[in-house]
Amino acid sequence: MVTPLRSRIASANEPGCNFPIQNLPYGVFSIQGAAPRCGVAIGDRVLDLAACEAQGLIEAGGTFAEAQLNGFIALGRAKWDDVRARLTGLLAEGATEDLPLVAMADVTLHLPIRVAEFTDFYASRNHAFNVGVLFRGPENALPPQWTHMPIGYNGRASSVVVSGTPIRRPMGQVRGENGPEWTACRRLDLELELGAIVGGDSTMGERLSVERAEGMIFGYVLLNDWSARDIQAWEYQPLGPFQSKALGTTISPWIVPQAALEPFRSAGAERVNPLLPYLQEERPGFYDLTIGWTMNGQVMGRTNYNAMYYSSAQQLAHHTQTGCPMRVGDLLGTGTISGPARDQTGALLEMTQGGKEPVDVNGQSRTFLEDGDEIGLFAHADGEGYRIGFGPCTGRILPAQA
Amino acid sequence: MVTPLRSRIASANEPGCNFPIQNLPYGVFSIQGAAPRCGVAIGDRVLDLAACEAQGLIEAGGTFAEAQLNGFIALGRAKWDDVRARLTGLLAEGATEDLPLVAMADVTLHLPIRVAEFTDFYASRNHAFNVGVLFRGPENALPPQWTHMPIGYNGRASSVVVSGTPIRRPMGQVRGENGPEWTACRRLDLELELGAIVGGDSTMGERLSVERAEGMIFGYVLLNDWSARDIQAWEYQPLGPFQSKALGTTISPWIVPQAALEPFRSAGAERVNPLLPYLQEERPGFYDLTIGWTMNGQVMGRTNYNAMYYSSAQQLAHHTQTGCPMRVGDLLGTGTISGPARDQTGALLEMTQGGKEPVDVNGQSRTFLEDGDEIGLFAHADGEGYRIGFGPCTGRILPAQA
Repeated sequence: MVTPLRSRIASANEPGCNFPIQNLPYGVFSIQGAAPRCGVAIGDRVLDLAACEAQGLIEAGGTFAEAQLNGFIALGRAKWDDVRARLTGLLAEGATEDLPLVAMADVTLHLPIRVAEFTDFYASRNHAFNVGVLFRGPENALPPQWTHMPIGYNGRASSVVVSGTPIRRPMGQVRGENGPEWTACRRLDLELELGAIVGGDSTMGERLSVERAEGMIFGYVLLNDWSARDIQAWEYQPLGPFQSKALGTTISPWIVPQAALEPFRSAGAERVNPLLPYLQEERPGFYDLTIGWTMNGQVMGRTNYNAMYYSSAQQLAHHTQTGCPMRVGDLLGTGTISGPARDQTGALLEMTQGGKEPVDVNGQSRTFLEDGDEIGLFAHADGEGYRIGFGPCTGRILPAQA
Repeated sequence: MVTPLRSRIASANEPGCNFPIQNLPYGVFSIQGAAPRCGVAIGDRVLDLAACEAQGLIEAGGTFAEAQLNGFIALGRAKWDDVRARLTGLLAEGATEDLPLVAMADVTLHLPIRVAEFTDFYASRNHAFNVGVLFRGPENALPPQWTHMPIGYNGRASSVVVSGTPIRRPMGQVRGENGPEWTACRRLDLELELGAIVGGDSTMGERLSVERAEGMIFGYVLLNDWSARDIQAWEYQPLGPFQSKALGTTISPWIVPQAALEPFRSAGAERVNPLLPYLQEERPGFYDLTIGWTMNGQVMGRTNYNAMYYSSAQQLAHHTQTGCPMRVGDLLGTGTISGPARDQTGALLEMTQGGKEPVDVNGQSRTFLEDGDEIGLFAHADGEGYRIGFGPCTGRILPAQA
């Protein structure tokens, strides 16, 4: 076993730590009374990047003093690489520079980016099939184009919130016995996803290759696309999910850089048919990344990101096929990540077969989410002697307001 | 007949002028070498609002010097009313203040707002039925929830462009004889719509009443939601239109204030069933507004906005039903506006019955758009002795780039 690089921050070297020196995820934090600024997580500390730049330790054109990472991200990959190398040097064991570190326990974490636009995909074949059976029956479960293109839809950027934000059970219109009914959602669900952060602009009419698209991905967050299944079932044909997905989408505060995941590159699910050239990848586009979710502290589902069929790079390339311009801060949800087994599913809709087979949660029975339930997502890639963790992505359900 | 208010700008008083003193639409313009700033159209002139404020003629916190109207719009309805009253005074016949006016012919017009997010609806019963028959057959044409809620989907804000921007025929994936095919779009279409500009923020979890929603609408533009029908047919199930709608959405440069349309308030299409309380309007929510489109200069379709089933206020209220926060600069497309007759349809898909019944355009036959075709939208509300016009909303098709 290769001895992994160690950090001068002792907590970063502890087994199972989410934020070792190999990770260096970016976020936005504030300490009491001060304005939010950018930071990097290391062990149980946050390195204040705005202060680092003020001290002359790094250089990023002042972007780290901003309350979102968009400005830094827009500087491009060469700068990302540069700053990452420099941070690795500053935080390595033996480095002696005076660093502006604060305790993670003392900071408030904010939405790390100003979300330009949010697109959600549908790239797990297991999930697409399972949900398809429930919504449309086994014959029409997997749409005919599914194995030929990443299916996605535009979500709502304004309802993306940071981990820890409470999620209100929505009111909405659902199918009733005798016509539509206005009610508190009865089938509130989570969706276990990753979100890719687009790190560059493309111009209108420009089509990105998968290779170029991959180069434009800054990093990844955990993403919970809360879903009101009863509202969804009534509204979603023919134009897709709308208000059933607008009640809130939670992302984790720390953006794990693409570079930190590079050692875990992995092939995805086996292809059923060859893809059109514009979607073909020259190298494996997934990561060997364990991902799962908890309800009220109990692990419910756990699978691997490399069970997915389309990578974020393929999704981004497809997103530009008709000329759509992409922008720094665009957030691309992978789609719900589900494996084939029940305990590998990333949504209650699948896990309980549309509410027909309840699950046990700490001795209580659940079909969909109840008020007070807290969902947490987790993900980690495990290297030799270190773990690239994503940190928390939680949300608790508040009762509906009629 | 009441004598209408007249302007000191002679061209504004001419019969059929789009921009009389009763209109006063807002836009963003530039003159050679100068930065874009906000203006108001009056006759064949543009009143430079940034210069007006610099001269002390109006007061809007400096927002008119910005390159989008978002800053001004965010000041709220009381300020909108205030500025409108003041502009009416400054531009009325007999007023003598020295005004910074430029010739419309000398200006370049820009996108009037930074589009926060773009949502497109589906609110013409004729259009929904006609298109439904073509995509799904007559039995499933009108979805069951259609008469109970405004169906909408999130579009892509980054591909919204201003009138005059050329539209590139997209490449894309379509259903072929033996599986999917990568091709230049063969069924390129327009969609005749209005766009409502949201003029206020709402917070997450807040549901807007129809009445409050109406008060938050700043004004309206023409909107052409260019559509690649072959790409749409292959991609749109089950999550809705995506890349087929991301090639470009053209809006007119002038935002007609809601206040200018107030005298034309009108009921919409007759209701088939009562709406749930959250969608009920206390007063008619439509306008008696002629709207239509031209191809290569020939009028093709013409109908009235009051043939629609859901108003923009109802759409905005519905948009917040599950708690989705709305923001200044959100753009809500009404959906394609079609009357029942062939020459009242707002899309070639409907007009040609999915390409089966070509139409004549200046002696040439068309099913869908050909390279070089230019589409123009128009709309006007006709008062006693004046016309509230929307001005141009045009786009010409460029050939695909393989």
